[in-house]
Amino acid sequence: MAKGEVVSNKQVILRHYAKGFPKETDLKVSTGTIHLKVPEGSNAVVVKNLYLSCDPYMPSCMQEDNSIGMPSFTPGSAINGYGVAKVLDSGHPDFKEGDLIWGMIGWEEYSLITTPETFFKIEHTDVPLSYYTGLLGMAGMTAYGGFFEVCSPKEGESVFISAASGAVGQLVGQFAKLMGCYVVGSVGSKEKVDLLKNKLGFNEAFNYKEEHDLDAALKRYFPEGIDIYFENVGGKMLDAALHNMRLHGRIAICGMISQYSLDQPEGVDLMCLVHKRTRMEGFVVTDYFHLYSKFLDMLLPSIREGKIVYVEDIAEGLESGPSAILGLFNGSNVGKKLVKVACE
Amino acid sequence: MAKGEVVSNKQVILRHYAKGFPKETDLKVSTGTIHLKVPEGSNAVVVKNLYLSCDPYMPSCMQEDNSIGMPSFTPGSAINGYGVAKVLDSGHPDFKEGDLIWGMIGWEEYSLITTPETFFKIEHTDVPLSYYTGLLGMAGMTAYGGFFEVCSPKEGESVFISAASGAVGQLVGQFAKLMGCYVVGSVGSKEKVDLLKNKLGFNEAFNYKEEHDLDAALKRYFPEGIDIYFENVGGKMLDAALHNMRLHGRIAICGMISQYSLDQPEGVDLMCLVHKRTRMEGFVVTDYFHLYSKFLDMLLPSIREGKIVYVEDIAEGLESGPSAILGLFNGSNVGKKLVKVACE
Repeated sequence: MAKGEVVSNKQVILRHYAKGFPKETDLKVSTGTIHLKVPEGSNAVVVKNLYLSCDPYMPSCMQEDNSIGMPSFTPGSAINGYGVAKVLDSGHPDFKEGDLIWGMIGWEEYSLITTPETFFKIEHTDVPLSYYTGLLGMAGMTAYGGFFEVCSPKEGESVFISAASGAVGQLVGQFAKLMGCYVVGSVGSKEKVDLLKNKLGFNEAFNYKEEHDLDAALKRYFPEGIDIYFENVGGKMLDAALHNMRLHGRIAICGMISQYSLDQPEGVDLMCLVHKRTRMEGFVVTDYFHLYSKFLDMLLPSIREGKIVYVEDIAEGLESGPSAILGLFNGSNVGKKLVKVACE
Repeated sequence: MAKGEVVSNKQVILRHYAKGFPKETDLKVSTGTIHLKVPEGSNAVVVKNLYLSCDPYMPSCMQEDNSIGMPSFTPGSAINGYGVAKVLDSGHPDFKEGDLIWGMIGWEEYSLITTPETFFKIEHTDVPLSYYTGLLGMAGMTAYGGFFEVCSPKEGESVFISAASGAVGQLVGQFAKLMGCYVVGSVGSKEKVDLLKNKLGFNEAFNYKEEHDLDAALKRYFPEGIDIYFENVGGKMLDAALHNMRLHGRIAICGMISQYSLDQPEGVDLMCLVHKRTRMEGFVVTDYFHLYSKFLDMLLPSIREGKIVYVEDIAEGLESGPSAILGLFNGSNVGKKLVKVACE
């Protein structure tokens, strides 16, 4: 394909708003066309999409009234999410053909982007480009902002992470280890337990599906309690963590994946916050985007030296998109889930 | 009675651990005797109890396994709580006959106190002595620590207080008004609404029992959202407040009176903490006791000048104790509930 051509454009489309928790069949893959040229006089860019991030907030955006505070997708149009793309044509002075960028893109082969200034330009390509959907993108910034800014960690503290092999959790654990913390993760399979202990350097890990009593599990790994809980799942796990916090502990709420598919949130014993003087705080990654260059300065050398590793679970092609997104909710992914749309 | 005498000693006794939420009949009033003299060589004090504070945590202490983090009462013995007493005999160098003190005392006419050093000596008696069970005691310090230390209030912020005419709430509202905040309280009767608006200087107040939709009620009083929620009740009110917080708002959890009588806590939508980057923090008044003299320096002049007022609901005599405590849970008290045991 060449600049200026009209080409076919495969897309992942939201058929209609989902009734109840979304299913793969609420999405469809279909093919339209796109003109690979920026309209005359516009400062838009046309991009080729390379990698798409699968994130737990996305199914909620397939519902008309979502409770997660993100705009819903538009029925009949391509869904969107964080991803990596390559500029094919640019009407914007800051972007030129061949630039690599990451930000909010459509789930389609090519996109016309009318707000390119909201994207980050990718300057470092000696690391895998797919990392900009996760480790060096939204998930990485989520781990960075949530752990360092919200949790105020101190050397030697005890850190618990749920969904600990996921896009964010695996990185929080490694950040905590670099800080000299004791780190335990919970995950949903033996394979993921091995990953945490043998590849990601966690002190301990357990499979929550094998624990009949989450409170007892946490007491086993944290006999003196938890200083920091990095919360990704909510519900029963949050309740167990609340009962095992040390005095003046901190809970950073990143997400609550166990709750998104429920009509009513599960009750947790919030009086624990009082007994242990716990601070629980929600955060949103975009609040920390101004720290992105500081984040890269810290992270890139650690990646190059092998001190930080990242596990990805890559689905090939847009056709695999619907199952990749919904698969996050049955834990079938191992590591950061993403879709590879095309080679650079 | 005179020092050294053996006198009769009326007590409020826990008959047995309550099954389920406590009832008045789980308590009884009976009469024993006490020797009004400190044992030879001990540094205890013997006191005459004057005023007893009724607090929402107390019924939980009537259960064997309570979830509120306080020691349970002992069946067959007098219950205890914060109160004001007068020293009749002292073996402790810091206390002498006639001293007035406040701290944790038994619900009885006279007590032998073996740890007098845990008590505060009352130095200012130009204000009602009963205030040391509330305004100038535990409730006052709770309002002070919770509002100024946990909520970090700023002039002009919007403050919501539940159980707002209670021992703590009425004071938080007045502190917030003194800071130049906009203050709204929720209470359980028209009489209490009038109290808040006409006597305590709240900007607005509403009767939650007359609101079918608490979310709509909060939107009416806080069209731009809540900066600070001082949480005393939990459950549906907390859920509604969570949905109405402004960005970077703060929720200080003082207590959750609506939840103490439930087997399972009600679910609230904690993902709101994420959307609005809300900080929710529990606290315990004893963490702020080191600020007591600073607190008095601030509060006493305001009381003397009439800038801070306090509404008390005084039950007469130990016999009224059981109904006074349990009455907190049907909202029958108006203002700080306490029991007057004896005149000075």
